[in-house]
Amino acid sequence: MFDDETTARPKAGRSANPGSQSALRMRNQLRVTDQLLRGGPATQAELSRMTGLSTATVSNIVKSMHTAGLVSLTPTTSSGRRAHSVRYVGDSSIAAGIDFGRSHLRVVLANRSHQVVAEREIPLPLGHDATVGIAAAAKLLEVLLAENGISRSNLIGAGAGIPGPIDRRTGKVIQGAILPEWVGINLHERLKSALNLPVFIENDANLGALAQISWGAFAAVPNLVFVKIGTGIGAGLIVNGALYSGSIGVTGEIGHLTITEAGLICRCGNRGCLETIASTATMIQLLSRDRSQPIDAEDIVRQAKSGDPTTLRVLEDAGTAVGRALATISNLMSPDVIVIGGPLATLGELLLTPVRRGLLRHAVPVVGENTTLATSSLGPRSEALGAVSLVFQHEPSQQTL
Amino acid sequence: MFDDETTARPKAGRSANPGSQSALRMRNQLRVTDQLLRGGPATQAELSRMTGLSTATVSNIVKSMHTAGLVSLTPTTSSGRRAHSVRYVGDSSIAAGIDFGRSHLRVVLANRSHQVVAEREIPLPLGHDATVGIAAAAKLLEVLLAENGISRSNLIGAGAGIPGPIDRRTGKVIQGAILPEWVGINLHERLKSALNLPVFIENDANLGALAQISWGAFAAVPNLVFVKIGTGIGAGLIVNGALYSGSIGVTGEIGHLTITEAGLICRCGNRGCLETIASTATMIQLLSRDRSQPIDAEDIVRQAKSGDPTTLRVLEDAGTAVGRALATISNLMSPDVIVIGGPLATLGELLLTPVRRGLLRHAVPVVGENTTLATSSLGPRSEALGAVSLVFQHEPSQQTL
Repeated sequence: MFDDETTARPKAGRSANPGSQSALRMRNQLRVTDQLLRGGPATQAELSRMTGLSTATVSNIVKSMHTAGLVSLTPTTSSGRRAHSVRYVGDSSIAAGIDFGRSHLRVVLANRSHQVVAEREIPLPLGHDATVGIAAAAKLLEVLLAENGISRSNLIGAGAGIPGPIDRRTGKVIQGAILPEWVGINLHERLKSALNLPVFIENDANLGALAQISWGAFAAVPNLVFVKIGTGIGAGLIVNGALYSGSIGVTGEIGHLTITEAGLICRCGNRGCLETIASTATMIQLLSRDRSQPIDAEDIVRQAKSGDPTTLRVLEDAGTAVGRALATISNLMSPDVIVIGGPLATLGELLLTPVRRGLLRHAVPVVGENTTLATSSLGPRSEALGAVSLVFQHEPSQQTL
Repeated sequence: MFDDETTARPKAGRSANPGSQSALRMRNQLRVTDQLLRGGPATQAELSRMTGLSTATVSNIVKSMHTAGLVSLTPTTSSGRRAHSVRYVGDSSIAAGIDFGRSHLRVVLANRSHQVVAEREIPLPLGHDATVGIAAAAKLLEVLLAENGISRSNLIGAGAGIPGPIDRRTGKVIQGAILPEWVGINLHERLKSALNLPVFIENDANLGALAQISWGAFAAVPNLVFVKIGTGIGAGLIVNGALYSGSIGVTGEIGHLTITEAGLICRCGNRGCLETIASTATMIQLLSRDRSQPIDAEDIVRQAKSGDPTTLRVLEDAGTAVGRALATISNLMSPDVIVIGGPLATLGELLLTPVRRGLLRHAVPVVGENTTLATSSLGPRSEALGAVSLVFQHEPSQQTL
C-alpha cells in the first residue's frame, strides 16, 4: 500500500516527489483506469489489491468515474459477499486481434470493455506464404466488420501474432519461426499497408501471456510465464504486470533450452533442445509409428483422456522435460504463476502432473514450492485475445478523465 | 522519445492521460532527478538518452535545478565535445552499504551524489554465525562515522547483502546460502535492531546488479544480468531499469541450473548443477590436487595471467559451462548486457573468451549475437555500493523540487 494521500511512497527503484494532492489523485485515477483497461472488469476489492491503492481511495475514484459515465457497475458476489463488478465503458473503440497459425487464421473484434463482438477462424493451407495469410486476414476483417455492422471508423488498430520470433527493432520475422515461409518478411510493414490501420505485432506465446493477464484468470498476477506447447514450444513473460520484450524482442525461447547434451538435432541447428522431446510434433511422430495415417494433437488429447498407456507414457516423458525447463525459468525469474497453453491444455491434471514432477525435481525447493502451475482456460482464442489487448495498450482512450 | 509536450506517449503496458502541462513537466523533472539519483553524474546528452526526454527538455530541467541549487555542473568532455557533468547535490544524506561475505565484512558510507565518504573491509572467521557478523557490522559502522566526523543524524539507512537467497516475504535467509550458519535467521529484524536504522537487505548478486546500473558503466542499460562467480554462482537481474525480485525474492539462481544430468552432487541436493562445474570452489579443488596447501581465487588469477596451461584449461571448462547457463538466461530474457563479477573478473578476456564460446554455442543465434558480455569494473566494492543504492532507492530525497 503506498497510496495513502498523506504518506505516499514510491515503488522500489523510483525516486519520487509526490507533488500536489491533485497530481497524486490524478495518478491514482490513472492507475485504476489502467487496471480496468488492461485487466478487464473487477470488483473494488480486486482493484484495490491490483493497484496497491487503499479500498477507500478506490471507492472514491470509482464513484467519480461512475458519475462521469466512464464505468458501469454490475452487482456480483466476491468471496460470498455482495459487491459490484466495475467495467470500463468509456468509449466505442474496437480493436482487431489476428492470430496467424501454421494452418489457420483467426480474427477477433473486441471493445475496450473486454467484450468480443465478432470472431471467426478459417483454415489456411500448410506452407502458405505471407502474402496469402495477410490477404486472408484483410478479407476476413472486412467480412466481420460488414456482417456485424461495425463502422471502420471505430476500428482503432490491429494486433497480430505469429508462431515465431520477431525482431522488434526491424519488425521482421526471424529464422526459427514455425512458419518458415514467413522468415525475413517485414510483417509490420506488410500488414499495416494491407489493413490501412495502426498495427502491432508480437510472437504468439507473448500474446498468450498478455491474454492471461488481460482476459484470463490472472489479472492481478505481477509475474507470470505462459508456455505454449504446440508444434514449437515458446514462452511469453509478464514481468511486473507488463509484457517483457528484452533487448531485441526475442524472449522466452524455452523450446531451445538444451535438455539432452547430445540429443536429437533440432530445427534451430542445436541438439537435444526441449522441442525435440516435448513438442506436439515430436509426440505425434512417436505415436504415429505403425499407423497408416499420422495422428494429430486432438487425437493425443482423446487417447490420453481414454487412458491409452502409450499416449500417457509419451505425455509423461514430454511433461517431465517441460517441467525441467520450467524449473530453469523458475530458478531465474521466480514467477508467481506458470500457465500452460496450446492444444494439450485441455488435459488439465493429466498434463500438469508430470510437468509438476519435473519442476519440483529441478527447481530450487523454495522456488518450486511457491510457483503455481495451471492450464490456460482461454483455449484457441488466447493469441487473438492477446492481440486485442496489445492494441488497447498502445492506443489509450482519448476520453478525458 | 515520449516527452514532447504536445505528443506525449505512454510506455507500452500503461494507459495514460498526459494531464496538464505542469503535471507533465513535473513528471519529466522527476525522471531526470530519478536518473541522477540512481545512475550518478551524467552529461545532458546522456540524461536525454537515459530518460528518453529530448535534449531541449533536459536542458530546461537542468537549468532550473541548477538555479535551485539541486545540481552542480562540472566541465567535462563527451565524445570529444565540451559538455557539463550534472551531479545531484540536493541533500546531505548518507547511506551505509554493508557486504557480508564468507570471511569478510565491508562497510561503505556514501552520499546521494555517488561519492564514497568512508570505506573499510575487515576479515571475519570462516563459519562465523550471524550474531558475530551483525555485531561486527554495527561496530565498524560506528567507527567509520566517528573517524570521518559524520553525524548519525545524516545516516538515513543501511543496505546489506549476503551471499545467499533471502525470502523477501519474511526477511529470512533461506537454505542454500554460502553462509550456512545464517540460514533461518531474520536478517532484516536483527540488523534493524542492531543498527537502529531503516534496513534493506538483498542477495549479493542482486546488489552487484544494482551497482552496475547505479555505480558502474551501465546506467543506461534497461535489461542487464550480473553474474557473480565465487564460492557459489548467482545472478542478479535488472529488468526495465530496476532490480527484479520475482514472486518471493529468490531469482537468478543460475548456479543450480542442471548442466550435466548425472553429474556431481551439489550442495542444493541436485546433481550436475553449474556450481559443481564452474564455481571458484570447484576450480580451487581441481587445481589444489598434489599441493600441500590449497590455492585460493587470487592464485587462479595469477596463474592464469602467467599462462599456466592447467589453470587455463580449468578456466576454459568452467567458462564454457557458465556460457551455456548464460545462453539459457539469454534465450529467456534477451538482456542487453551480461556483466561477470567476483574474484575472477580481473581476468577480462581470459575469462570472457570461453564464456562467449559457450554462450554462442547454446543461444538462439540472433539473441547470442546481440548480447554484450563484459567483466565488472567495480571489483570487491560492488556489493557494498549496490547496498548503498538500495537505501537511496527506498529513501527518496525530502528536498522539494
